[in-house]
Amino acid sequence: MITSTSNAKVKRLVNLRKKRRARDAEGVFLTEGLRMFQEVQESELKELYVTERFYEKEKKLVDEKCRAGRCGIEVFSETVMEYVSDTRHPQGVLCVVRQRNGDGWEGILEGRKSGKAASCPLILLLDNLQDPGNLGTIFRTGEAAGVTGILMSRDCVDVYNPKVIRSTMGSIFRLPFWYAEDLPAAVREMKAQGICTYAARLNGTCVYDEPDYRKPSAFFIGNEGNGLREDIAELADCYLKIPMAGSVESLNAAIAAAVLMFEAVRQRRH
Amino acid sequence: MITSTSNAKVKRLVNLRKKRRARDAEGVFLTEGLRMFQEVQESELKELYVTERFYEKEKKLVDEKCRAGRCGIEVFSETVMEYVSDTRHPQGVLCVVRQRNGDGWEGILEGRKSGKAASCPLILLLDNLQDPGNLGTIFRTGEAAGVTGILMSRDCVDVYNPKVIRSTMGSIFRLPFWYAEDLPAAVREMKAQGICTYAARLNGTCVYDEPDYRKPSAFFIGNEGNGLREDIAELADCYLKIPMAGSVESLNAAIAAAVLMFEAVRQRRH
Repeated sequence: MITSTSNAKVKRLVNLRKKRRARDAEGVFLTEGLRMFQEVQESELKELYVTERFYEKEKKLVDEKCRAGRCGIEVFSETVMEYVSDTRHPQGVLCVVRQRNGDGWEGILEGRKSGKAASCPLILLLDNLQDPGNLGTIFRTGEAAGVTGILMSRDCVDVYNPKVIRSTMGSIFRLPFWYAEDLPAAVREMKAQGICTYAARLNGTCVYDEPDYRKPSAFFIGNEGNGLREDIAELADCYLKIPMAGSVESLNAAIAAAVLMFEAVRQRRH
Repeated sequence: MITSTSNAKVKRLVNLRKKRRARDAEGVFLTEGLRMFQEVQESELKELYVTERFYEKEKKLVDEKCRAGRCGIEVFSETVMEYVSDTRHPQGVLCVVRQRNGDGWEGILEGRKSGKAASCPLILLLDNLQDPGNLGTIFRTGEAAGVTGILMSRDCVDVYNPKVIRSTMGSIFRLPFWYAEDLPAAVREMKAQGICTYAARLNGTCVYDEPDYRKPSAFFIGNEGNGLREDIAELADCYLKIPMAGSVESLNAAIAAAVLMFEAVRQRRH
């Protein structure tokens, strides 16, 4: 059992939690809690850290998963677990999970990694989204709405940030995503494949429930403060607006994404 | 200028930031930042604290507002402002604002405090909502969607919590709300007034876009982990479900509220 916070393994984990560069260098990320532990596929699980209390409670699950994934178990004292953890009251289980390097163009066109392929692409494009909670919520909402994948600019917040991971509630493992090195090029490719592109903009001219989203569609969502960058927005076929009452200047990015996605799904259901 | 964090005024402000009881005892709450300062009505502004830098930059605005509101100005050093503030990089302005004691039944039925009365009630009922970010986002989204008011159980997170205030983006000043001492009684009153009541539930039977929300309507949203309590849910006329793809167990509370509210608004626009 590791009981000292100055242990080298502990220091490495804290580094992985805090720094995108450290995560990318090792090609891993961290997940915490029972729920996420249950969601991790054995093939993606690299290392497992538990408290004694957690191990005693979930021995069967832990042993099975580690045997299947051929991954070792290390026991942390409660103090060390709290030190490493991103949450105030950790549940006593922390996984080091292999990153997947994005699912590429095919992935986000075709939908869920497991289960049946989507019949019609529904893509969410995120340009310079910065808030981890927003990104995580967008993953969770996107999976629920049935989007086929999420395309992101390189400068979006890291999908492997612990706060993003936590707020995806597991969708990170299931919803295809892709960081495009050249986002305008990816958008041009998208359009060449016959996907209609819709930019959510405050100066939009088309009310969001007017277009026909039963065709292959992509929604563009911009940065929380500044919206979409011009070079991306100008590639869109249509500027959407979500009519707003009151004196509200804009909707939260995750809320705007949800309203658009669920309108598309509503149309596809009818 | 106050430069010491052990100053009694500073301690009181920290207390007001941290404790609901302290806020309720004085009947006030705190807002931070230029944007919120601009939104506060003079009659609601009780005290103002600024850094020298902020004062120099916004002298005209500050002087006008304080003269109109007959409220004094106190200058804080940057260090003291950071100490008092809820944010890491405070903008240099902090207001002590009078609480309004909720807007009562009339308020949430009739809509915005200023501007034209809503033609048809659209109410959001929140039962034991606990996440400050969710509550703030629901206020912001609710104003944008044009709901007439928000009805809350007494044990919802405090609307005057600094995180709630910040994420309302000013909607807290504009959208009527009411904490009901007896929520079931309030629901019965609502129904007696001819308002159709819809509970968002995972076991809902009615797809959320089927009912006619052009009639007076109320949506019930429950706690993040546990959903609606039985005694509230069973009073609803109809259990709504939002169809979900993938393996998502539930939507975030603010997202679910947004999907329902914007469906109601969509119907009312057509």
